[in-house]
Amino acid sequence: MTGTDALSLLRAALGDRVDTAPAALAAARADKSGHAASGQPLAVVHARSVDDVQETLRIASRTGTPVVTRGAGTGLAGGANAGTGEIALSVRAMDRILEVSPDDLLAVVEPGILNADLNTALAAHGLWWAPDPASRAISTVGGNIATGAGGLLCAKYGVVRDAVLGVDLVLADGRLLRLGHRTVKGVTGLDLTSLVIGSEGTLGVIVGATLKLRRLVPGEVCTIAATFADVRTAAEASAAVTASGAQPAIMELMDAASLAAVHALLSLDPPTPGAAQLTIQTDGPAAAVEADAIAAVLRTAGGTVALSHDREEGERLLAIRRSMHPAMETLGTALIEDVSVPRSALPAMFDEIARVEREHGVVIPTVAHAGDGNLHPNFIFDPSSGSGGGVDEFGVAEAPDHIWAAADDLFRAALRLGGTLTGEHGVGVLKRRWLADELGDDQWQLQRDITRVFDPQGILNPGKVFAH
Amino acid sequence: MTGTDALSLLRAALGDRVDTAPAALAAARADKSGHAASGQPLAVVHARSVDDVQETLRIASRTGTPVVTRGAGTGLAGGANAGTGEIALSVRAMDRILEVSPDDLLAVVEPGILNADLNTALAAHGLWWAPDPASRAISTVGGNIATGAGGLLCAKYGVVRDAVLGVDLVLADGRLLRLGHRTVKGVTGLDLTSLVIGSEGTLGVIVGATLKLRRLVPGEVCTIAATFADVRTAAEASAAVTASGAQPAIMELMDAASLAAVHALLSLDPPTPGAAQLTIQTDGPAAAVEADAIAAVLRTAGGTVALSHDREEGERLLAIRRSMHPAMETLGTALIEDVSVPRSALPAMFDEIARVEREHGVVIPTVAHAGDGNLHPNFIFDPSSGSGGGVDEFGVAEAPDHIWAAADDLFRAALRLGGTLTGEHGVGVLKRRWLADELGDDQWQLQRDITRVFDPQGILNPGKVFAH
Repeated sequence: MTGTDALSLLRAALGDRVDTAPAALAAARADKSGHAASGQPLAVVHARSVDDVQETLRIASRTGTPVVTRGAGTGLAGGANAGTGEIALSVRAMDRILEVSPDDLLAVVEPGILNADLNTALAAHGLWWAPDPASRAISTVGGNIATGAGGLLCAKYGVVRDAVLGVDLVLADGRLLRLGHRTVKGVTGLDLTSLVIGSEGTLGVIVGATLKLRRLVPGEVCTIAATFADVRTAAEASAAVTASGAQPAIMELMDAASLAAVHALLSLDPPTPGAAQLTIQTDGPAAAVEADAIAAVLRTAGGTVALSHDREEGERLLAIRRSMHPAMETLGTALIEDVSVPRSALPAMFDEIARVEREHGVVIPTVAHAGDGNLHPNFIFDPSSGSGGGVDEFGVAEAPDHIWAAADDLFRAALRLGGTLTGEHGVGVLKRRWLADELGDDQWQLQRDITRVFDPQGILNPGKVFAH
Repeated sequence: MTGTDALSLLRAALGDRVDTAPAALAAARADKSGHAASGQPLAVVHARSVDDVQETLRIASRTGTPVVTRGAGTGLAGGANAGTGEIALSVRAMDRILEVSPDDLLAVVEPGILNADLNTALAAHGLWWAPDPASRAISTVGGNIATGAGGLLCAKYGVVRDAVLGVDLVLADGRLLRLGHRTVKGVTGLDLTSLVIGSEGTLGVIVGATLKLRRLVPGEVCTIAATFADVRTAAEASAAVTASGAQPAIMELMDAASLAAVHALLSLDPPTPGAAQLTIQTDGPAAAVEADAIAAVLRTAGGTVALSHDREEGERLLAIRRSMHPAMETLGTALIEDVSVPRSALPAMFDEIARVEREHGVVIPTVAHAGDGNLHPNFIFDPSSGSGGGVDEFGVAEAPDHIWAAADDLFRAALRLGGTLTGEHGVGVLKRRWLADELGDDQWQLQRDITRVFDPQGILNPGKVFAH
């Protein structure tokens, strides 16, 4: 059948949930990665129920039409971008909280709820869902699960994988499976919940989730801002904090270029040239004691340390880190990368970034979740410079070849240091070319074969993750 | 080809690592579940290296011979029992620690190392691997991973799934895959590490693991022993502790029958008839404060509370819980079950156990990891009573039909309460008949199809988990 047939069937079954307005189709092509799909999708389906999702998948299966599931479209790897002939299936409107159980520390939610909205509702019960991607104000829980999102608090409070008990999944043919359990422990059969976390829309459509909650952490929050002469010294200091046995809730590192761009954006006094900064928070009953111990480690490591016991001052200090993305936009177009290395390798990874900058003649402002070894190097470029880049017919920038060559060099350095291609953003389209390099050909093929068990026709997010 | 061919090929390739001594073959038929496989395996292969495992799997694939992987044989679901025509592949001798990295909080180990031996070695670095199944002194890390083991400390410190970064896996055809990563965060491709955890030998042979470590917890350990008039009141008290926001390291519940059997075994004064006991430990810098708060909750809930700040006294109190298995052996033969329910449903689950005892005329002494909702009802029976039971030609007891009927009733009650068939022991052979009841037929088939991607011939642990 043709795309026209699929569209007719969708309209007949789902009526006004099928959206072909030019603005909707254009928006569904892109996420926050700066990358967009070629062409425009067939339609955007705004699902309001599990039934809507099942009906969409049944029509897609029958007509062999590809389906790209979307939440809020805040991904950074192009994983939810829908292009020519594809159905963009939005679950953003499925945003209800179905259950909160404080006694069992769990909540059951629909996928489209924003992470921050969920946490606002949970706070009334004295609870929170720990995963806190930097995008938490604008990203959905379903998207957090589909990408296996991380965030700032991971080293102490875990990532999405640690905070999901079960997932309801609609398969490519429209069948609904309930994976996982509501209990703390459970080993009945294979752990398909974990397999779905981070599967980026290739195994099915997440239509519900049972989340593992925490109680709000009592006690004060202490915030440390420490500056160092250069980024390597700051990275060594963060490794020293980890090695000291301290467990900060947050430990963020910003290099000189990042710091300068954010200070300019926020109209703050310019930072000392070349200086890098660590921003660290401790929480819980021992927050003050831990902060003092960490401050001592940082001073020994050469840092100039300021310590605040005031929650609001802490938020002001962290706002500098949180302004990274808008600050990068003032410098040019950014390709945001996401390598992760063992924490002790952070200084060596910053050496590699400096080498890549030098050898490729590119600028790579970098921030790192130093508590867990996850770095976000931002490759800044002008789309009109060099070959291979440019702006497509819809106005979306593409990175030129020399930027990809520098990114390739950086990825391989991370792998050499025992690291991984992506710590929390996912593979999507932007990193698929490196996937087999990390997994090896045998594992790549095995993973792809597993997707075929869920989706024999290959209609779920084709071209993402496993496409060469 | 025949089993004889496989045996000749194994002997030619592996020499004296191939063991056909009657005692070795008999031992490989059974684990600690009380169940044994029919007949005897072809041979026990004592692998000493990854190469040995790969060679064994290549021969098994070529000859179509089933392979049952074994560690220390301490499983409680029959998952590692090897029978007629099967190769029992022991990785127990592969017990080296290959790397300990205190700075990155990880260790790389071979699968055959005992959990307790690993932790003794890690303690010298001020580190530990948190998973602590009750069998930790006698069970292997590889077996802990293959079953997705839990233990006493799970509610606070997590289960095996939370403590493994990567797994090296030999596939059915002998190829070696390296799954996972060495970093705190990592979302490159599907999470096959989590899929392998708890897969009970159906996806491949675990030949190495990268483990996520913790630092030893500083501060004192406080232990509370609280007795209650009956088990329901004790269960309500444990739920009240969880609901209060306290986070004990350990919270164990023993019913009256369990308590009486252990007191008799240890020659202690008999406990108050009908009374049940909670044993609770707190740790970390706030241990004493937390213990006082918990003691207050327990008293309000009707408990008689004794609190100790002495580590050795705490060990003595916990020894009562740790003597459960030998105490059950004094009562008869035990079928040890492993259901898990949401914590708030613990009192209702104890009601169901009392109902099953009454309606089926059976005795079910029960202990529970009350901190996480995981119960171990012990169905006590005399193998010579009733139909269907008995002792096989090798002297291993089989549960009679009326015990299975009572277990069936109990499993279904756990599912009705939002629970799961197995919290930490796995499915093996003992629970395979209920697997589709919990997963549903569609998910059961999907999971089985996934095993076929790893093992197209179906030679890995056939008859376990997914056999009806």
